[in-house]
Amino acid sequence: MHSDLWIEEKFSDFLGLRIKVEKVLFSGKSEFQSVDVVETKGHGKMLLNDGLIMVTERDEFAYHDMIAHVPLFVHPNPKNVLVIGGGDGGTAREVLRHASVEKCTMVEIDAMVVDACKEHIPQTSKDLEHPKMNLIIGDGVKFVNETTEKFDVIIVDSTDPIGPAQPLFGEAFYQDVYNCLADDGIVVSQGESSWYAMDIQQSLLKVLNSVFPNSYLYSFSNLTYPGGLWSFTFASKQYHPCRDFNPERVSESGLSFDYYNANLHTAAFALPSFALNGLKGLIAND
Amino acid sequence: MHSDLWIEEKFSDFLGLRIKVEKVLFSGKSEFQSVDVVETKGHGKMLLNDGLIMVTERDEFAYHDMIAHVPLFVHPNPKNVLVIGGGDGGTAREVLRHASVEKCTMVEIDAMVVDACKEHIPQTSKDLEHPKMNLIIGDGVKFVNETTEKFDVIIVDSTDPIGPAQPLFGEAFYQDVYNCLADDGIVVSQGESSWYAMDIQQSLLKVLNSVFPNSYLYSFSNLTYPGGLWSFTFASKQYHPCRDFNPERVSESGLSFDYYNANLHTAAFALPSFALNGLKGLIAND
Repeated sequence: MHSDLWIEEKFSDFLGLRIKVEKVLFSGKSEFQSVDVVETKGHGKMLLNDGLIMVTERDEFAYHDMIAHVPLFVHPNPKNVLVIGGGDGGTAREVLRHASVEKCTMVEIDAMVVDACKEHIPQTSKDLEHPKMNLIIGDGVKFVNETTEKFDVIIVDSTDPIGPAQPLFGEAFYQDVYNCLADDGIVVSQGESSWYAMDIQQSLLKVLNSVFPNSYLYSFSNLTYPGGLWSFTFASKQYHPCRDFNPERVSESGLSFDYYNANLHTAAFALPSFALNGLKGLIAND
Repeated sequence: MHSDLWIEEKFSDFLGLRIKVEKVLFSGKSEFQSVDVVETKGHGKMLLNDGLIMVTERDEFAYHDMIAHVPLFVHPNPKNVLVIGGGDGGTAREVLRHASVEKCTMVEIDAMVVDACKEHIPQTSKDLEHPKMNLIIGDGVKFVNETTEKFDVIIVDSTDPIGPAQPLFGEAFYQDVYNCLADDGIVVSQGESSWYAMDIQQSLLKVLNSVFPNSYLYSFSNLTYPGGLWSFTFASKQYHPCRDFNPERVSESGLSFDYYNANLHTAAFALPSFALNGLKGLIAND
């Protein structure tokens, strides 16, 4: 019945990615966005918010490895971690693999995303009931403004700066993030792509630089995001993402990864010249 | 008239990339393949062979920087360079920027590709008439088998291993490449993607390992190739691509690049774990 169903994500008015859909597993409309889970050919199950591909089972490990393990291996002893967004659960899943982590608070605004992933994508959502998890359905912007907790690492696992995620790209939010980070805290955020969204990167980095002493950008490969070469920002009150990274901690952890490794950690901060030029003065990558 | 024309490249039976076409500039059928040049929205002019995207003006610099400058900055004094394929001219253009290069021989099998690019894509083809160029329309497989020249660097700028490029992935070809390389020669080849074409990478690396002491894989970002994270292989009779690379030679060259830089040179050899695992025993990347 669904033999001829394709999803097309229009990256822009000139570029689109089409993926063959085997079956629609869930389709709903929350107060924030439309939420769909589909079974695809070749990419496993896929989550879409407002028609944009968020996660596919085939390549989600790349995104979740790099958003979680880079800050958690730079911070020498991350105990208290906050995830803003990340409703599919993949980021929390990776955070919880670190033995030092005592508590992972996750603040996702859209219950429908969490519920749909819990029911249909256990690959990412399987640890959302973990005893160390503190899952809050609520507004991350409000949470960081009101909490009195201090976090070692904050991960902003947001969608693009349209719809519910827009305030997560603003200065007020990052001032609050700064205030609820420990003195040696680190914040890592979904950082878009230098190929097609340099303007968003510039604006996010300007905000980070108005609050943190230094900001950095690091890259990874995403199969279904426009441009492929996607990125995260890294800002910290005191740590350098490479000079304060001890590769031995990765082997000592006993963890293995499908994407992340110690060499790639440092290599991810080496950017193509066009990205370095476009972000000149905004990033402290050497 | 062409307002509703899109090109769709089917990456596989489940994934396709669609790009809006403004105008068809050239469309022909040679004895080897179909050759099309179109003006796109957002990506400038684009060359397609057999319907597969080869080059777009917007991102060709990434491919051509990384295929040319990695070997040419590892070899301490590259004078005589051979390019197999590369009919659009972009690889030769980058080779010719190196002051040490005295001669760049390019052997492209399909005159139609060269002619179409000369007429419609001067951005890549502009140096094909350069006084140091030795452009041969002919079979690269036959050329390396018959030549008595010795080359410092050989670049195999081929299409996928279907159609005319198939022999460029075989052992007989690489044995001949070895024989016409100088004692400290380097060969770099288009190396597909670990995301969607690991089997081709494995088979190419097996061939390289049967001829060269060590083989390596390095990555770069391509906007319009399936998987985004694309790669080149590196094999040499004696040089290590990172340990024998002196970053100072890049700054001393006075050249500037939109993609390549000295940090990225080394970083490109740091691969994601799934690629390292899939290519275990076949690459000497550390």
